[in-house]
Amino acid sequence: MTSTPVARPDEVRRYNRSSLLRLLHVGGPCTRAALATELGLNRSTIKTLVDGLAEAGVVEERVPRPGRSAGRPSLLVLPQPQAAVVLAVDVQVEHVAIALVGLGGQILGRNRWNLHGRMGHPGEVVTHVVESTQLLATDLGVRPVAAGISVPGVTRRSDGHVHEAPNLRWSDVPLGERMAAGLGVPVTVGNDAEFGALAEHLRGAARGAADAVFVSADVGVGGGVIAQGSSLRGAGGYVGEIGHMVVRPGGRSCYCGNEGCWETEVGEAALARALEMPDDSPRGAIVAELRGLSGDPGTAWERLAGFAEWLTLGLVNVVNLLGPELVVLGDLLTALPEPVLDRVAGEVRRRSMVSRAMGGVRIEMSSLGADVKLLGAAEAAFEGVLDSV
Amino acid sequence: MTSTPVARPDEVRRYNRSSLLRLLHVGGPCTRAALATELGLNRSTIKTLVDGLAEAGVVEERVPRPGRSAGRPSLLVLPQPQAAVVLAVDVQVEHVAIALVGLGGQILGRNRWNLHGRMGHPGEVVTHVVESTQLLATDLGVRPVAAGISVPGVTRRSDGHVHEAPNLRWSDVPLGERMAAGLGVPVTVGNDAEFGALAEHLRGAARGAADAVFVSADVGVGGGVIAQGSSLRGAGGYVGEIGHMVVRPGGRSCYCGNEGCWETEVGEAALARALEMPDDSPRGAIVAELRGLSGDPGTAWERLAGFAEWLTLGLVNVVNLLGPELVVLGDLLTALPEPVLDRVAGEVRRRSMVSRAMGGVRIEMSSLGADVKLLGAAEAAFEGVLDSV
Repeated sequence: MTSTPVARPDEVRRYNRSSLLRLLHVGGPCTRAALATELGLNRSTIKTLVDGLAEAGVVEERVPRPGRSAGRPSLLVLPQPQAAVVLAVDVQVEHVAIALVGLGGQILGRNRWNLHGRMGHPGEVVTHVVESTQLLATDLGVRPVAAGISVPGVTRRSDGHVHEAPNLRWSDVPLGERMAAGLGVPVTVGNDAEFGALAEHLRGAARGAADAVFVSADVGVGGGVIAQGSSLRGAGGYVGEIGHMVVRPGGRSCYCGNEGCWETEVGEAALARALEMPDDSPRGAIVAELRGLSGDPGTAWERLAGFAEWLTLGLVNVVNLLGPELVVLGDLLTALPEPVLDRVAGEVRRRSMVSRAMGGVRIEMSSLGADVKLLGAAEAAFEGVLDSV
Repeated sequence: MTSTPVARPDEVRRYNRSSLLRLLHVGGPCTRAALATELGLNRSTIKTLVDGLAEAGVVEERVPRPGRSAGRPSLLVLPQPQAAVVLAVDVQVEHVAIALVGLGGQILGRNRWNLHGRMGHPGEVVTHVVESTQLLATDLGVRPVAAGISVPGVTRRSDGHVHEAPNLRWSDVPLGERMAAGLGVPVTVGNDAEFGALAEHLRGAARGAADAVFVSADVGVGGGVIAQGSSLRGAGGYVGEIGHMVVRPGGRSCYCGNEGCWETEVGEAALARALEMPDDSPRGAIVAELRGLSGDPGTAWERLAGFAEWLTLGLVNVVNLLGPELVVLGDLLTALPEPVLDRVAGEVRRRSMVSRAMGGVRIEMSSLGADVKLLGAAEAAFEGVLDSV
């Protein structure tokens, strides 16, 4: 049962205010007229809202750069980055990155440290994040009001409990609780691929796509799903583990207990093996090898055909199960030679009956680069913030 | 952007009225006091709503059967089945079933005809459905106000276009349009497994489960997903084709163009093969053979272990991708001997890391039997009706 839509005037005002802020935060500077059109509100309501936000220092109005059109230019409403700052944390196997992100999505400052191959113990990671955040915040003269933390593992959204993050060798870590205690702000912990999907949906290749899947491969393989405009989560707030879909029964053993998981076939180690490099080749060497193939489609296909087949097969399954209009590939997958990716995309469209029905799923590269999970973590933190700025 | 929650009093009243009707329709008879609690409305609002609905003949109030409690019994509010009747149609490979379903979900009358092995041509099916509906409606003295039609294939929800229903040998059939023209009422066409999931969610084993998957095997294998309380659909309103997830690369050829689809491994023909019966054995013979195994778990496992492994593998994938709290198995899968199903359920819980994180996915049998898709089609039709009764 959803709640009854009884709306008091102050609730309507608050709702309109946060809708307007969300629009500026995600869409960037906007004229009052465009805000009125987008939100379906009249200009006097917009004026009241914008004036109130400007007075509170949350937005400012500025004359745009002179354009070609005649007449008085419309003022642009801009979010003030310092009006609401969140902390974004991206915990990866090899490093931890933090960023302070302002209203509007701009990264105000960042820091990162390598773990030099040894896994970060949860306690150390918490201490380091808390200390680095304090330093960075002091440097920038800001104070984060919430934090989003991306973890490559199975996490419970409600309380930030990390059940299992095998590539970090973490299990049963009450990360949300510990980070909140250390940072003194509300904390949202999420799966890295879920946050990647969120970032692509709001600021990347999947902008405007209501149904999209983000698939990213580095050490592990993860996927995040946007369904009907929202993050798809399962029971208890756990998101799916797309990398542990079995695609090759009887294949390589995976730490999850199965054999032939998508992760064991298209993760970093699998890509190294496809290139006849050692399983534990450094990322840089793998990427360099892939770049070397980019000028020679024939050789690229010859060496990567097997890898491409497992990538194709998993993507066919994902498209047949979820029917997205768009799949965004991230991390290492963006380093694959273009002719290989084009061939994979063509095969997925040919072999998925759901894609055929839809007239062809789009398969695109992430446009957010290495920051995708950090940006997603920031957006997860902003979710609770925009209503109360 | 969601719409602004500006609510006029008449909108609030209409919203409350349809919430109350939905509650009675799905939950059955209810006292005014319980309605007030469930809807979070005060008793005088409930009285006004119930009196209005009773006057319009949509509900009636009745003294419940005498119970043990002392004092004056509370009146029960009951939906009047005849107040809103919908047509439900279940198109299957071997037969077509229709039912007229009243407010509250009761089947008022039904009819079905066998296709005797030959596929029903779309035109014939439309004509037959229209004529049978007229006869049945006249017999019962009712007039359906909407129709839901279940089809085993890839259908576009917006306009009821059937893109591909390979087991029926249909492709590109504008079924929604044709049925609406013949029946003269709004028509909702949907994938049979999506409708199965809807029925299980509202009236079956998945009642109260916000995240559930319904997997059903007969000639084909289909799946419907309930995510966060609603049907999961992809782009363009297409639902996923769970049966065309490849689980056995290099396996049997599937008409969809892939090899080793879940459907080729756990559909009716695969079950027949597992039992060493001919591929095209009649359903009755397969079920009889399975019943014969029910008293002998050892033999049952010996004969079905291979089949069970493919069932397990597909379920592990579904649970890892979607993280449901519950998977409901339907159709032929409910005929598997209990010890086999128990073993499959245990294996899925053991082998899916998402299930382990959640503390164990539940795997249960459909409780709605052969009517599940018919009931789902009825609920899809009711979706547009309850707001305007």
